Amino acid sequence: MNSETITMAHGSGGLASQNLLRELILPNFSNPALDELNDGAILNVKSKIAVSTDSFIIRPIFFPGGNIGKLSICGTVNDLAVSGAIPKYLTASVILEEGFPIDDLKTIVASMSKVAREVGIQIVTGDTKVVERGSADGIFINTTGIGEVIDGVNLSPRNVQAGMKILVSGFLGDHSAAILSSRHGLETNLESDCAPLSKLTQEMLATEKNIAAMRDITRGGLAEVLNEIATESNVGILIDEEKIPIRDEVRGVCEILGFDPLNLANEGKLIAFVPSESAEKILDTMRKNPFGKNACEIGEVVTNSRGRVGMKTSIGSIRVVDFPPGELVPRIC
Amino acid sequence: MNSETITMAHGSGGLASQNLLRELILPNFSNPALDELNDGAILNVKSKIAVSTDSFIIRPIFFPGGNIGKLSICGTVNDLAVSGAIPKYLTASVILEEGFPIDDLKTIVASMSKVAREVGIQIVTGDTKVVERGSADGIFINTTGIGEVIDGVNLSPRNVQAGMKILVSGFLGDHSAAILSSRHGLETNLESDCAPLSKLTQEMLATEKNIAAMRDITRGGLAEVLNEIATESNVGILIDEEKIPIRDEVRGVCEILGFDPLNLANEGKLIAFVPSESAEKILDTMRKNPFGKNACEIGEVVTNSRGRVGMKTSIGSIRVVDFPPGELVPRIC
Repeated sequence: MNSETITMAHGSGGLASQNLLRELILPNFSNPALDELNDGAILNVKSKIAVSTDSFIIRPIFFPGGNIGKLSICGTVNDLAVSGAIPKYLTASVILEEGFPIDDLKTIVASMSKVAREVGIQIVTGDTKVVERGSADGIFINTTGIGEVIDGVNLSPRNVQAGMKILVSGFLGDHSAAILSSRHGLETNLESDCAPLSKLTQEMLATEKNIAAMRDITRGGLAEVLNEIATESNVGILIDEEKIPIRDEVRGVCEILGFDPLNLANEGKLIAFVPSESAEKILDTMRKNPFGKNACEIGEVVTNSRGRVGMKTSIGSIRVVDFPPGELVPRIC
Repeated sequence: MNSETITMAHGSGGLASQNLLRELILPNFSNPALDELNDGAILNVKSKIAVSTDSFIIRPIFFPGGNIGKLSICGTVNDLAVSGAIPKYLTASVILEEGFPIDDLKTIVASMSKVAREVGIQIVTGDTKVVERGSADGIFINTTGIGEVIDGVNLSPRNVQAGMKILVSGFLGDHSAAILSSRHGLETNLESDCAPLSKLTQEMLATEKNIAAMRDITRGGLAEVLNEIATESNVGILIDEEKIPIRDEVRGVCEILGFDPLNLANEGKLIAFVPSESAEKILDTMRKNPFGKNACEIGEVVTNSRGRVGMKTSIGSIRVVDFPPGELVPRIC
């Protein structure tokens, strides 16, 4: 690379684009489909696939526990994982602002490469566009993932029934709290939980194929995902405040900045709705995985209050947990 | 929609996001996979698929012959089409700038819906993000497409051999010339050729399965795609200037603004490398399709000058056609 920042020519499709691709992208992601450099990658897959897409616009792009590159892989991998699929292939499309430091791009691409290798997912095709200074904010990344659905697995809110237990894979709110701390200059030891959950979900499904539904707990937090499931499944949900794992530092950030920890985004946590009789067995499996070591049960599916989410508070009353309101934490992913 | 412009809340994952999705997106794109609103769409596909991704950042977003929405579908559909696949499923991910007019978004989404129906492709999952005013330029759209590779079809630059004929599907440069005219206030009747080519490619492949390779002629124009094929196939390419279909108005725009028409982007044109003996039969098929009615042969693959592209000029000499230089037309797609 001759220049040290991105120029419009890097997005032109001409020689500078070719060089960026050949010097920076291909050495990190080499695989047969990508190396062909065709307009489309040709892939062999099982006949039942899961597909998910996400654009990442997080600020700051480098944050405690990760960066936009790592996040862009984990986010899409996790969507495939909670769909009951084994992540196989990924596309990556980057929009860069003119003037973006090439060293930062190298760091981001290296993070993408590292976590993709950990997951065993191949980046098979991509795209780079450049816009003028002031027309974007540094870098945006879209990833779209393709996974092969595990045989015999069928995860859907429709399977969720009264009596099922609700499990979460660990402490909630770390991602949002770390980002908020970073933005507001709060001194904490918090790190984003940004992590790929596909091995965890595969282990859970190997333990119990009849898990009813899983979700990763991202934008809108636990409140969002519980309300979505309650609405889509037309069940009632009752969680127990004292069982919800939230770090004291996260509670502290929430108190200072006026957030409800139930609304905070995570980037490496999932929720699972499981048959009551399998709950302990699944928790045992989860706790053996580094990304599930603090897994716990937080409540259950109930017959009353269909479509609604209630929380037993520490003083014994029941508080309604609503969908998060409009303006939450912007640009959290 | 209560507000008339996009607010940060529309991208928050909370209630405003839900409303945007339910009122604007779902009515346009309803299908079983999308309606599930899960993190990943579950799809049944043949075991050999083509995948392509592109982010669209074009300016202006509304242009003669189309808009960023139509373009975002056609661009990815065409990448699948020239991979020898039937486009089946699409993901759509939108990054919006705070303050973007919701009426414009409605127009764009309606265009996406219209062309997706024409193609017979389903938008199965998506994502919406919003950034603060000044952090993006109105709207960026990423689409990722999945197509099923047609049985017995194997398109690859590796198949390209000396003696093969080179076909293009119609007039070149209309897209770039229309965008440039629009930006520079030139009065022309030019329209972008933005169009989905998947029916055309299917008809061509039904006529001749042994087409060697196809490409859509986008960023970098004919010069880019010919050089890519010459390099990847290690063949020589010789085209005939007098056979290249370029409208007089496009030549005029090029003369005024100082562009080489061979470097201009198209959004509804393809190039095919075909066995010499099938060329006429394939051209007959192409000319029956509205998007191929001006198809013609422009040259052939030769044994000498491997890896290089030559053009017989109107005065009988041979001019070398190089990869386009760095800075072409920015934000053309």
